Amino acid sequence: MDPDEFRRYGHLFVDWVADYLEGMERYPVCSPVKPGDVRGGLSLEMPEKGDAMETIFRDFQDTIIPGITHWQHPSWFAYFPANNSPPSILAELLTAGLGAQCMVWKTSPAAAELEELVLEWLRDMLGLPVGMSGVIQDTASTATLVALLTARERATAYESNKRGIKIPLLVYTSEEAHSSVEKGVKIAGYGKDNIRYIPTDKDYAMIPSELERAIIKDKEQGSCPACVVATVGTTSSLAMDPLVGIGKICKEHGVWLHVDAAFAGTAAILPEKKWILDGVEYVDSFVFNPHKWMLTNFDCSAYFVSDPASLIRTFEIHPEYLRTGQDAVVKNFRDWGIQLGRRFRALKLWFVLRSYGLEGLQTMVREHIRLAQYFKERVDEHELFELMAPVELSLVCFRLNNGGNESDLNLINEEFLARINQSGKVFLTHTTLKGKYVLRMAIGSRTTGQKQVREAWELIVTAAKEWSGTDYSFP
Amino acid sequence: MDPDEFRRYGHLFVDWVADYLEGMERYPVCSPVKPGDVRGGLSLEMPEKGDAMETIFRDFQDTIIPGITHWQHPSWFAYFPANNSPPSILAELLTAGLGAQCMVWKTSPAAAELEELVLEWLRDMLGLPVGMSGVIQDTASTATLVALLTARERATAYESNKRGIKIPLLVYTSEEAHSSVEKGVKIAGYGKDNIRYIPTDKDYAMIPSELERAIIKDKEQGSCPACVVATVGTTSSLAMDPLVGIGKICKEHGVWLHVDAAFAGTAAILPEKKWILDGVEYVDSFVFNPHKWMLTNFDCSAYFVSDPASLIRTFEIHPEYLRTGQDAVVKNFRDWGIQLGRRFRALKLWFVLRSYGLEGLQTMVREHIRLAQYFKERVDEHELFELMAPVELSLVCFRLNNGGNESDLNLINEEFLARINQSGKVFLTHTTLKGKYVLRMAIGSRTTGQKQVREAWELIVTAAKEWSGTDYSFP
Repeated sequence: MDPDEFRRYGHLFVDWVADYLEGMERYPVCSPVKPGDVRGGLSLEMPEKGDAMETIFRDFQDTIIPGITHWQHPSWFAYFPANNSPPSILAELLTAGLGAQCMVWKTSPAAAELEELVLEWLRDMLGLPVGMSGVIQDTASTATLVALLTARERATAYESNKRGIKIPLLVYTSEEAHSSVEKGVKIAGYGKDNIRYIPTDKDYAMIPSELERAIIKDKEQGSCPACVVATVGTTSSLAMDPLVGIGKICKEHGVWLHVDAAFAGTAAILPEKKWILDGVEYVDSFVFNPHKWMLTNFDCSAYFVSDPASLIRTFEIHPEYLRTGQDAVVKNFRDWGIQLGRRFRALKLWFVLRSYGLEGLQTMVREHIRLAQYFKERVDEHELFELMAPVELSLVCFRLNNGGNESDLNLINEEFLARINQSGKVFLTHTTLKGKYVLRMAIGSRTTGQKQVREAWELIVTAAKEWSGTDYSFP
Repeated sequence: MDPDEFRRYGHLFVDWVADYLEGMERYPVCSPVKPGDVRGGLSLEMPEKGDAMETIFRDFQDTIIPGITHWQHPSWFAYFPANNSPPSILAELLTAGLGAQCMVWKTSPAAAELEELVLEWLRDMLGLPVGMSGVIQDTASTATLVALLTARERATAYESNKRGIKIPLLVYTSEEAHSSVEKGVKIAGYGKDNIRYIPTDKDYAMIPSELERAIIKDKEQGSCPACVVATVGTTSSLAMDPLVGIGKICKEHGVWLHVDAAFAGTAAILPEKKWILDGVEYVDSFVFNPHKWMLTNFDCSAYFVSDPASLIRTFEIHPEYLRTGQDAVVKNFRDWGIQLGRRFRALKLWFVLRSYGLEGLQTMVREHIRLAQYFKERVDEHELFELMAPVELSLVCFRLNNGGNESDLNLINEEFLARINQSGKVFLTHTTLKGKYVLRMAIGSRTTGQKQVREAWELIVTAAKEWSGTDYSFP
């Protein structure tokens, strides 16, 4: 591809992306293709000679796009959002053009120093302790694994890297914690049998007294409590584990406290939501994802530690071919995580933070929270629907409830969700809360507004009406 | 940022990237900034209100760019390349625009099915066994960790995820293996004490008989050999561990064989270099990086396994909020690795493979190998220089040698390398081979040609001449 062709297609693709972002409502939110459809539409042979970009782009439009589930759609209410933004997309273009691999300071000083700076901005915006140091990880799964590994090392006086785990090391998390905790525990060699799932209260938050009881019991039995993973904003219902109570217990018993605030952490940029991080002064490590609710393209997970020395001691390696003359005076982020190679992810974060400014981000987050409250009120006042968890931020957990038995309700809601999504107009997903099948209305797409939330509600009520045969008017 | 502004800056940035790629030789290859320079040039305050894109882009040009080490520079000879290409950059733009998070099939069917397809293309191009299945990982570090974890599970009859490691599990690799093996062994909980570093021959390749001796000895002592990590193309010198010999031993003793071919794997697309993978039929897992020598933007690491069931069994998780109706009939790549979240990385790979075709890629790889041979011959025929390892592909290991003692030679070469790099005209890095400080001339940037390699050689000879006071003419 010659430079002129690159320019021509570059301009074409920029316009395509602009049109895509503006006109996304023409697409069904969730791709309606069947397994095998996309593959069936593509040439299965790797070409001997290169294909023209015109052909490739046509296949992209004709076959790839119908197979895309549109995460940036204004009617995206599934999982959690992974919202991007124009400044972030532009920065990704520059990052790709530079093609820098930022494993150590020397292999791109600007990447290392910008990463340090933007992580300080994030730390201060969220009100994390000023002593914390940050690094970008790819995902919260990785960040939580990194925390579990550092905790493992600290609990064994930095012997587990060398000798493995010799006595049972225990990890505590709530019944509602994300699956990445279990996955990380397995990877780090703790053994899943050494997770203690602490019961939750009626709001699905960890009960500190239960945590303390478990820690004491394990200590009495000669096991070593190594790590507590608390969640600020669980995936199922955005439940908030109480960090003050948990933090005091961790401090008393010398247990590493990691906080997974992957989605909800962003809300702490609002003065009125700062309380979600009350107790954060007890925390050893903390993760939240700017790629979820802070307009930064996936992947970009912000990980903070109180004691970077323990992190580096866990991960540093010094092969000769990676030594540089600056090693003593700079941050080499390769030693702050699992991968050696690193993308220049700080650039997109910097573009986003500077483009929106604190006020721009606060406006967006407030609006999403307001929309969730609007939706919650609709649920609350409608006799066919039931609210299933507190709504503090931008997720509403609800279900249809016609007074049937629980097992019927689960089946009914599963079928009801399928019906709603089949419309292509919205995409919601589900979870279970204490055995109950629950629909999740997760609001956080950059372009989601009152219109989309109201339309979603209308669609849901209409579907319920069809299902129940009753006429329900829209509030 | 409104749509018009996105278009305007999008076009501007495309042109900037085009100019950057064309005019890169105006920059010093390795950034000359001092620690703190970049930070010192930036506004340290997170803005309350958004900054204009004009300001951000000016800071990018004025402060970020001087702090960038230019990995795509045609005179990049450091580490290994991480070469990108115009089609790959264009695909990254589309990927960023789509902003899809491809954790499971349903969250973007096209991403899952395209990933399956392009990994089949790679498998077949390299001549890997047709039974192997592929998945994109971020880096070879991660892929090797994934292999170590799967091997750990298999060696414990799939008990280690549940109970941790109960008896010593051993990992074997050569003295020349990449540091990611040690890092992965630590993370996976084997304990670094349970790595056996197998001696290498005069060409820095693992000696199979030494491997077998170590395995037998460990078995006799009641330990369990779990995994051998062989390297096709070591980082220091591109040494090739002999897979046939190693593979037979692994098969006989029931040990998982993982192959790290991160850089060199790409060479197997040439019929005349297929031999580097002789013995690959014995392999349980295999990784190589299209982001190194296959024109695909970092990150994109291709990982292949012979038995995907063992991989999935090691990593699968089934939280309720991730269940979909298609789970039984599709590939959910979240269960093929560590992270839950996944970028749409198959798109750039597909753009590259289709744009260049097999012939285009072969032409590039052949040219890089030819240039390395050219450079090797210059070294060979020059009395002041010494070749330090065989040159089978595109890396030349060499040093200045004036006949001094080894310790002096190490210091001399370290200083000599600094002098060469200080010019800003080239960037080479070093390693040690059996205690000797060695310069690495790694050829693989997309735009590197005869001109740059010849100029590098001239620069090296001139520096040597200045250093030695002798007049050496250029061959």
